[in-house]
Amino acid sequence: MNHVPFSERATVRRVARRASYDPTVLEAILDEGLVAHAAFDHDGHPFVVPTAYVRIGREVMVHGAVASRFLKTAGMPMSLCVTLIDGLVYAKSAFHHSVNYRSVVILGTARDVTEESEKRKFLDALVERVSPGRSEVVRPPNAKELAATRVLALPIDEASAKIRTGGPIDDEEDLALAVWAGHLPIGLRAGELVEVDDHGGVVARPEIPQHLRSPGFGR
Amino acid sequence: MNHVPFSERATVRRVARRASYDPTVLEAILDEGLVAHAAFDHDGHPFVVPTAYVRIGREVMVHGAVASRFLKTAGMPMSLCVTLIDGLVYAKSAFHHSVNYRSVVILGTARDVTEESEKRKFLDALVERVSPGRSEVVRPPNAKELAATRVLALPIDEASAKIRTGGPIDDEEDLALAVWAGHLPIGLRAGELVEVDDHGGVVARPEIPQHLRSPGFGR
Repeated sequence: MNHVPFSERATVRRVARRASYDPTVLEAILDEGLVAHAAFDHDGHPFVVPTAYVRIGREVMVHGAVASRFLKTAGMPMSLCVTLIDGLVYAKSAFHHSVNYRSVVILGTARDVTEESEKRKFLDALVERVSPGRSEVVRPPNAKELAATRVLALPIDEASAKIRTGGPIDDEEDLALAVWAGHLPIGLRAGELVEVDDHGGVVARPEIPQHLRSPGFGR
Repeated sequence: MNHVPFSERATVRRVARRASYDPTVLEAILDEGLVAHAAFDHDGHPFVVPTAYVRIGREVMVHGAVASRFLKTAGMPMSLCVTLIDGLVYAKSAFHHSVNYRSVVILGTARDVTEESEKRKFLDALVERVSPGRSEVVRPPNAKELAATRVLALPIDEASAKIRTGGPIDDEEDLALAVWAGHLPIGLRAGELVEVDDHGGVVARPEIPQHLRSPGFGR
């Protein structure tokens, strides 16, 4: 287990006490997130786009249409960030207001996943992420769908986590101010499942399966 | 009102029917988000970092420590993305699973905000964003805090929104499959406020003020 920064540039510099390089910590954050943000260069301008992803072992995998600008970045330098928003921090001074969060930033170069079996494994994992067991009941990807999908895999090597928790850190001279201070936990929560229309019986609508009753995050 | 793409490179290419260039749509998404992801170049490698932000008029403003790598990008090409996760989409085929979201991507070059009054206006807006009315009761930033804070402002010109809503779009030949299909709404929700410790009476703890009873997002 590598608990030290992989490189100088992957070392957290601002408020370094909030940094972690522990793979267990990084993987827990990556496994809780639903959407990552990927940065890449396009004609000399840095672009950032949101993307679904899944961690498989020591890689983060993303996918999209073969023609996508982002998915053409295999072999090129890129970075990827997953951020979980955990709360809002209310201090006695404007300056010390903050956000509680857990984030992971990965720098590196993604490889193009071309093996059909590995693409399948990734697409299965993407479905399993939001409903464990579901990949076995849905119609699997066919050859045409696999051909239209590009998959990139970014190694979780040059990576760091940054975590802020708890209440505000106010200046000592502000502590007696009669201003309410503390924090407000927030997080992603699910509502109620919405079923597709049956279009006059054309669409089969079986009972809600067990795998959708615990979709892997707060309800 | 400019409802057409600002530039060729700011034009959404993948699933273009989900794109919008309507400023009202873009501003509504930007005003609902709490954290943005900013991409910038650092020594030839694209970096992405999460950051708090606030929209003021036709600019998105971010801040941080003067020494921050990210905040040194004033005048350099950068981009910024705000993504709201709205739901998970369960299709009858693995391939058509998706995520419901609203996102805005802005390309451009940020200006360094150096005027003290403009920095104050931004810091006030950041506090107001999470508790309307609170900027008037907290201790305002002092000269030292303002000097230690760099503020960047990115114009919302070269920008696009992308929005996915509703259930899955399954292939016609899959509609009769006995697989549950639909979507699960999700969103950020707040829990209960957690007050700071009073440290034996050292820390003043007034009642929870009205401005924290409606912090501007789902509770």
